[in-house]
Amino acid sequence: MKVNGIPYRSIWLGSDGRTVQIIDQTRLPHAFPVVDLTTMEQAAVAIRDMWVRGAPLIGATAAYGLALQMGVDPSDAALHHARDVLHATRPTAINLRWALDDMVALLGPLAPDDRRDAAYARAAAICDEDVEINRRIGEHGLALIEAIAAKKSGPVNILTHCNAGWLATVDWGTATSPIYRAVETGIDVHVWVDETRPRNQGAHLTAWEMASHGIPHHLIVDNAGGHLMQHGQVDLCITGTDRTTANGDVCNKIGTYLKALAAHDNGVPFYVALPSPTIDWRLRDGISEIPIEDRSGEEVTKLWGRDAAGQVRQVQISPDVTPGANPAFDVTPARLVTRLITERGIAPASAAGLAAMFPEHAATAAQ
Amino acid sequence: MKVNGIPYRSIWLGSDGRTVQIIDQTRLPHAFPVVDLTTMEQAAVAIRDMWVRGAPLIGATAAYGLALQMGVDPSDAALHHARDVLHATRPTAINLRWALDDMVALLGPLAPDDRRDAAYARAAAICDEDVEINRRIGEHGLALIEAIAAKKSGPVNILTHCNAGWLATVDWGTATSPIYRAVETGIDVHVWVDETRPRNQGAHLTAWEMASHGIPHHLIVDNAGGHLMQHGQVDLCITGTDRTTANGDVCNKIGTYLKALAAHDNGVPFYVALPSPTIDWRLRDGISEIPIEDRSGEEVTKLWGRDAAGQVRQVQISPDVTPGANPAFDVTPARLVTRLITERGIAPASAAGLAAMFPEHAATAAQ
Repeated sequence: MKVNGIPYRSIWLGSDGRTVQIIDQTRLPHAFPVVDLTTMEQAAVAIRDMWVRGAPLIGATAAYGLALQMGVDPSDAALHHARDVLHATRPTAINLRWALDDMVALLGPLAPDDRRDAAYARAAAICDEDVEINRRIGEHGLALIEAIAAKKSGPVNILTHCNAGWLATVDWGTATSPIYRAVETGIDVHVWVDETRPRNQGAHLTAWEMASHGIPHHLIVDNAGGHLMQHGQVDLCITGTDRTTANGDVCNKIGTYLKALAAHDNGVPFYVALPSPTIDWRLRDGISEIPIEDRSGEEVTKLWGRDAAGQVRQVQISPDVTPGANPAFDVTPARLVTRLITERGIAPASAAGLAAMFPEHAATAAQ
Repeated sequence: MKVNGIPYRSIWLGSDGRTVQIIDQTRLPHAFPVVDLTTMEQAAVAIRDMWVRGAPLIGATAAYGLALQMGVDPSDAALHHARDVLHATRPTAINLRWALDDMVALLGPLAPDDRRDAAYARAAAICDEDVEINRRIGEHGLALIEAIAAKKSGPVNILTHCNAGWLATVDWGTATSPIYRAVETGIDVHVWVDETRPRNQGAHLTAWEMASHGIPHHLIVDNAGGHLMQHGQVDLCITGTDRTTANGDVCNKIGTYLKALAAHDNGVPFYVALPSPTIDWRLRDGISEIPIEDRSGEEVTKLWGRDAAGQVRQVQISPDVTPGANPAFDVTPARLVTRLITERGIAPASAAGLAAMFPEHAATAAQ
């Protein structure tokens, strides 16, 4: 989508056709730095340190990370080493494994000399496929927003949590794709952006995306959504997901579950937008089966912002002796999810609903 | 409770017997400044700017504010002016109105020359009554913690939201009073402290209280509690309340409702500790009847912390053009509240439960 009027993707190739370029998203919204990735190790750092984040973009970056490695050393050993290094960066992200498996399956049978060009071509295709998937999610989700707009006056109020915007994908975003499409078709939309502690992806990224496009929005604390729903100020919730089970349980940024509870309690539809590669067809119970990343407690006790003089600083909010605890994701049970918005259409959040929409995976899911 | 080994209350008289002393709680946990209040206007500022916060302490500060005014000008006009100024500082706080009404009812009939001493005496009595109320809340709540401790090994994990500690009362706190009593009786307790955005009273105040007493605790983001409850890591929630209706609806810091939903969904008991003066016997439907304070959006977009050099700074977390929306409280419906812990005992969160425990108010509640 656009930044200062210029269309961007979140990952692209530089003019040499080999250097991978990304946005260091940790510096948004206070700066907009484009970073060159020239080695696999740099790609791994970019994923691990969350310069890039969001399941689809992590997958795309990992794919290009393998391509960078193939440009240096296309041997079998280097291929599998790169796969292991890249996979270890964010073990919760299902897309990461999917993209790496896809690349290794393609590259493994090839002669080493053919691997570099094939890897770049496949990484580019993964990006293009992601853009197309997200565009389709936007088309399907648009129908939901149109239906709400037809029944009310004033803006359609949409609440979203974390960042499932174009910065988390290659373009369009997942949860935000229907919003962009609604704005394009002239619907009056207003977005409640959860700040999404501890890393504030909503405040740093989603708010920046909305501001860059001129989409009306307010930043709210993660505590506020329940109150807004009690008072009829939310028409629709749309979030993304890092990993969805075959029965529709949704693993997403910590706090998503609380918003789903509030939506359920107030009759507000709660939709989750997802590209189908983020479905883990082997899993049937998200709460017991999905390992949740415990991140550093310092992400809770310290946070980043820009001071009055314009300098970006980290400040500590708690006493020195207070430790933080930091589970990074939670699981929203399928019973709290109204529907799943996929690139094929809108599916019930259930084993039957997903199997009917993705029959090619039904056998895996049933095992 | 203790700070550096010295027992404190949150409000007390200086050695001249006239100056009111408080802690500027906005500077915790990075400093511990004691402030002299010598005029009613200073007391109003202390309430309005949240140097003191928490329903009972707001009431006590307002009472001393009237006493300060009576020391300057004990006329009827000054009395009613002071009442109006003090009441306007935090209109949502039911204790504020209660304390002011109580003081005006006492002072109004007195000769002006008698008002100063009577006002100080009554303000001191309001403080002592609050301490006794909170001590009793602790006794009743202790029984709940003892019952949980008897059934499990390892620490009793208690989650609390915002600050309902001794800093929010005159001493003991409401939600924390059972915790201090449990620690005194040798029970192994661990506290999950919600940071409580936007003003971070949990990170700034509750964590500081726990640290000052050496009570094991972790700071968590407001998003984390649902996940912890799903995984059996919370045995009990206890929060405070700014205002409770006659039927047990609980108005408290924004986000309380979300924790109550998660507790209900996971079978975790959700208790609210309250001194009975915070019950508004005229109200029967908290969601429709309690006005919610909309505070500045800058409390969402900017926050305070201590930088690496030790300086306390405000930093902005969002793009310049992004506005914040900031509802300060929410209402937890009585159906989600397991029980109310009052100074008289533990009552069902219902009109019948409260009326049975406080029969002298039943007539008001039934109107």
